[in-house]
Amino acid sequence: MKIVVTGAGGFVGRHLVDRLLARGNEVTGIDTHAAAIPAGARALAGDIGDAVLQKEALAGGCDALVHLATVPGGAAETDPAASRRINIDAMYDLVERAAAAGGRPRFVYASSIAVLGHPLPETGVDDSTPLSPELIYGGHKAMMEVAIAMFSNRGAIDGVTVRLPGILARPRGPSGMKSAFMSDLFHALKAGESFTCPTRPEATIWAQSVARCADNFVHALTCETRLLPPTRAVTLPALRISMGAMAEEIARQCGVSAGLVSWVPDPRLEAAFGAYPPLTTPAAEHAGFANDGTVAKLVASALSTLE
Amino acid sequence: MKIVVTGAGGFVGRHLVDRLLARGNEVTGIDTHAAAIPAGARALAGDIGDAVLQKEALAGGCDALVHLATVPGGAAETDPAASRRINIDAMYDLVERAAAAGGRPRFVYASSIAVLGHPLPETGVDDSTPLSPELIYGGHKAMMEVAIAMFSNRGAIDGVTVRLPGILARPRGPSGMKSAFMSDLFHALKAGESFTCPTRPEATIWAQSVARCADNFVHALTCETRLLPPTRAVTLPALRISMGAMAEEIARQCGVSAGLVSWVPDPRLEAAFGAYPPLTTPAAEHAGFANDGTVAKLVASALSTLE
Repeated sequence: MKIVVTGAGGFVGRHLVDRLLARGNEVTGIDTHAAAIPAGARALAGDIGDAVLQKEALAGGCDALVHLATVPGGAAETDPAASRRINIDAMYDLVERAAAAGGRPRFVYASSIAVLGHPLPETGVDDSTPLSPELIYGGHKAMMEVAIAMFSNRGAIDGVTVRLPGILARPRGPSGMKSAFMSDLFHALKAGESFTCPTRPEATIWAQSVARCADNFVHALTCETRLLPPTRAVTLPALRISMGAMAEEIARQCGVSAGLVSWVPDPRLEAAFGAYPPLTTPAAEHAGFANDGTVAKLVASALSTLE
Repeated sequence: MKIVVTGAGGFVGRHLVDRLLARGNEVTGIDTHAAAIPAGARALAGDIGDAVLQKEALAGGCDALVHLATVPGGAAETDPAASRRINIDAMYDLVERAAAAGGRPRFVYASSIAVLGHPLPETGVDDSTPLSPELIYGGHKAMMEVAIAMFSNRGAIDGVTVRLPGILARPRGPSGMKSAFMSDLFHALKAGESFTCPTRPEATIWAQSVARCADNFVHALTCETRLLPPTRAVTLPALRISMGAMAEEIARQCGVSAGLVSWVPDPRLEAAFGAYPPLTTPAAEHAGFANDGTVAKLVASALSTLE
């Protein structure tokens, strides 16, 4: 298959492109940091808002797209206009261009659990929880979920929206993501360093390893869309884990003391990223998506891919 | 209250502005046909996509907005770019401008049952039916429902989205609405003319009289938003009526024969506009919105406002 991946030099993108190449696909990657796109892919450097770049990516045909490029949550709050330009306008243009190229390409869209909003129902989230985003990022992602459904219903594309939970463990350094603390915990404990976690140990997250996430994207490229809800959108299965339990498991697997972690809650940050209620995702499971299975497996997977 | 009404010269807009003026409000109306805006309102002529016009409308303060201006369904299918420009971009700009003006204004958004999509579940539609639009119009309206929820959750505006069913009876003539046949039936029978209905008599619509619709907008301006769902969006209560029953009731009230109506179904049109399943709208009723009560009352109301 000829597959275009936007954000191909990003954290999830690199893992996904490696898998797609290993399966013999012809991959065109787009990224502002083209050097980060895995070797073997056709690498296009630039901003996904660039019309010329979009046309170049689609030239020569395209059976499927995976749209990962985004202005992430923290950056979108700081610069809502940039989020609107990239997360709405550029993506809408890309969907229209992909549709105009013909062949009703599979369009896999990386949405986010941020579409669900704050506060989440304490009793739990399931496939019937209404979307009521509060973050700019979540709002724009949710708007484009609707666009994917509409263009799919019109037969212009064959869309699949997957809502990503926290993906572990991202590289260290500025990512524009306020949820970076979840990943930084892995880096600190693997290095035997102390870590100040901005939540209580009881704080709960929804998480998936990057390897499992990339597998889910591979699945999204070929899954039967008749198994999806009418919205074409599924919340990916994730494990609900307390930060305390995750710290203990990471420490155990790294052979260090969980005492390296001190807990200094930032109430606002914990409310936004560490107060996730029980999650059930029957729609995604029905369509063949999966989580990591256990906390131990998630941690082992995340540690094995730590950069 | 200082209230800005976009599309104030349109069918629903004129009825609404009349009511708002009668209640002593200070109304600024925007319309491409400013001459159609009822006397007594400050009338601004122009396209809602015009930034200068938006600023002018908001200058001098604004407690609430009712956003009716739209590229309607048929026109949006013909010109999706115009729909994107007006139904998404211009509205997004307007919400941001209204928010920036401060005071967290009430923002009442006229959405549409087109957000629900095709085909609708045969067993019926309720407040949990997922949005899966097929029309460009419905897709764009649904995208902006999300934006209203997001900006409301952020405290930037105090949003209320009402999804309009078929509103009866629109003036004769080109409206850009494919559903015009529902209204044209009223005009024909009142004039004692024969009418060819492009559906079977068994075709079902969801309808509301324009007077009831205007009352619902007045209610939306002051209703308690804590009574609304987290999405801030409600499908307005509507009567589900068969075209045959409606024709008989109109004929009865006009003193003409229902035999004036002949039925020549256009299967595609009937599938789109005449196949509405049972509808329940507990969320809207909980928040105080209402339908016309009975078919006879709806028809009487629509006939009394026929232009």
